[in-house]
Amino acid sequence: MKLLRFGEPGQERPGILDAGGNIRDLSAVVPDIAGSVLGDEQLSAIAKQDLEKLPLVEGNQRFGPCVADVGKFLCIGLNYSDHAEEAGMTVPDEPVLFFKATSAVCGPNDNVEIPRGSTATDWEVELGVVIGKHAKYVSKDDALDHVAGYCVINDVSERDFQLKRSGQWAKGKSADTFGPIGPWLVTRDEVPDPQNLSMYLDVNGKRFQSGSTNTMVFGVAHVVSYLSQFMSLHPGDIISTGTPPGVGMGQKPDPVYLKPGDVIELGIEGLGEQRQTTVAS
Amino acid sequence: MKLLRFGEPGQERPGILDAGGNIRDLSAVVPDIAGSVLGDEQLSAIAKQDLEKLPLVEGNQRFGPCVADVGKFLCIGLNYSDHAEEAGMTVPDEPVLFFKATSAVCGPNDNVEIPRGSTATDWEVELGVVIGKHAKYVSKDDALDHVAGYCVINDVSERDFQLKRSGQWAKGKSADTFGPIGPWLVTRDEVPDPQNLSMYLDVNGKRFQSGSTNTMVFGVAHVVSYLSQFMSLHPGDIISTGTPPGVGMGQKPDPVYLKPGDVIELGIEGLGEQRQTTVAS
Repeated sequence: MKLLRFGEPGQERPGILDAGGNIRDLSAVVPDIAGSVLGDEQLSAIAKQDLEKLPLVEGNQRFGPCVADVGKFLCIGLNYSDHAEEAGMTVPDEPVLFFKATSAVCGPNDNVEIPRGSTATDWEVELGVVIGKHAKYVSKDDALDHVAGYCVINDVSERDFQLKRSGQWAKGKSADTFGPIGPWLVTRDEVPDPQNLSMYLDVNGKRFQSGSTNTMVFGVAHVVSYLSQFMSLHPGDIISTGTPPGVGMGQKPDPVYLKPGDVIELGIEGLGEQRQTTVAS
Repeated sequence: MKLLRFGEPGQERPGILDAGGNIRDLSAVVPDIAGSVLGDEQLSAIAKQDLEKLPLVEGNQRFGPCVADVGKFLCIGLNYSDHAEEAGMTVPDEPVLFFKATSAVCGPNDNVEIPRGSTATDWEVELGVVIGKHAKYVSKDDALDHVAGYCVINDVSERDFQLKRSGQWAKGKSADTFGPIGPWLVTRDEVPDPQNLSMYLDVNGKRFQSGSTNTMVFGVAHVVSYLSQFMSLHPGDIISTGTPPGVGMGQKPDPVYLKPGDVIELGIEGLGEQRQTTVAS
């Protein structure tokens, strides 16, 4: 299933994509696409719906973030070996965790705000993992049972805030609109192998990132199991699993950063596409 | 006002302390103590209640976390110059930000779980700042208008997870029960000077931390203004503002860390006291 949220910011309603690519309104079935409906039982109940009988959503709707009320926004750093190299950092022995502010979450096609004082706002296409079931001290073998599904994430980053403003990356990862998620939460039954998805990101029509989740250092099952050793993962939490090479910071001879009016387009195989325009904050 | 939440985990109800130190049930007045009731207008409405007419809560109630649905749990590192020294780190030029998982939040007197594999679980008494009004690019002069009030926080930390497990502190700050908050949210009108509050922390009856918020490097107004340059702060977000000297990691000749069965007691002038027993996870 491709679950989604449509409507104006703060007023989104739950929806689902039908076989014809149209949005069907799920409001009569679930209150929202959020942690409480992401368990296997709740997802099965949605899967039993006859989509043809649900209201067809007409018109050109805004996509909201594909998950509401994200509890934690966890990110894995340097999780593609060739990206670590371009960032001038070594591949870590174990996953590097940082948090992104949940207030950075926005819709997949919303404008991305360049923060005041920023000269180094950058992009990162990433595979997002949405937790469906409480995970604490879970094994790698059991880890994927705790995943509701997957989505596209642009882990927008301000490199100077991240790396030059007194330590810890959170400062450069958390600005409002730095976390477009969606357009869809694609349930895990439709993603048989999360470690074999091609992904790309273009800026102003030029391809910058081109990769595949098959070059991840620590795969999804490893990451979910690993993080669950340090804290509980709850339904509705999201893990952004790192980015392949081609970020702005890594361009030669000089870094390339975003300026107002740029257009970012990105996508992951089977998970849909995003398109953002950058604006001044 | 001293606002609080009482009852079993996940079933807490809102309450308020009356002049006699008794809990009065606020359920008929507000749905919960959470972001939506922390604005000046909503707090004024609570302040107008005749507490004698609200139901008296009898018996020995558990205190829940004093704020429900914490959106972001932001922490400032190395914000007391003498603590930075004991940690072997230099005082930063600007506030160091890291996030604690919101799933770490627990009641002020709940058991603190020592994570599996931990040999370096440590304590940190900290002044907590609860946001009451959306803050984005606010000046230092206006910053305190965005604060609903203050609370005691124990920023429980696993030092090896924080410092020796592939970078970024979040990993050592986020275990379940690593964030006791409360007992009360004390509204800012009752805390005329947040930069002059004495604070302490004892383990098994021995005083380890003894300090005052008057030795903070970056005060509350500075921190709120500063963070609002990097992201929106929303009602119900909490900022933990750093700890004075005396953490376990800084003890001489050897560090002292928590083991199951230890009792931690801590408090801040005017904001109440916490008492936790440590247990194995």
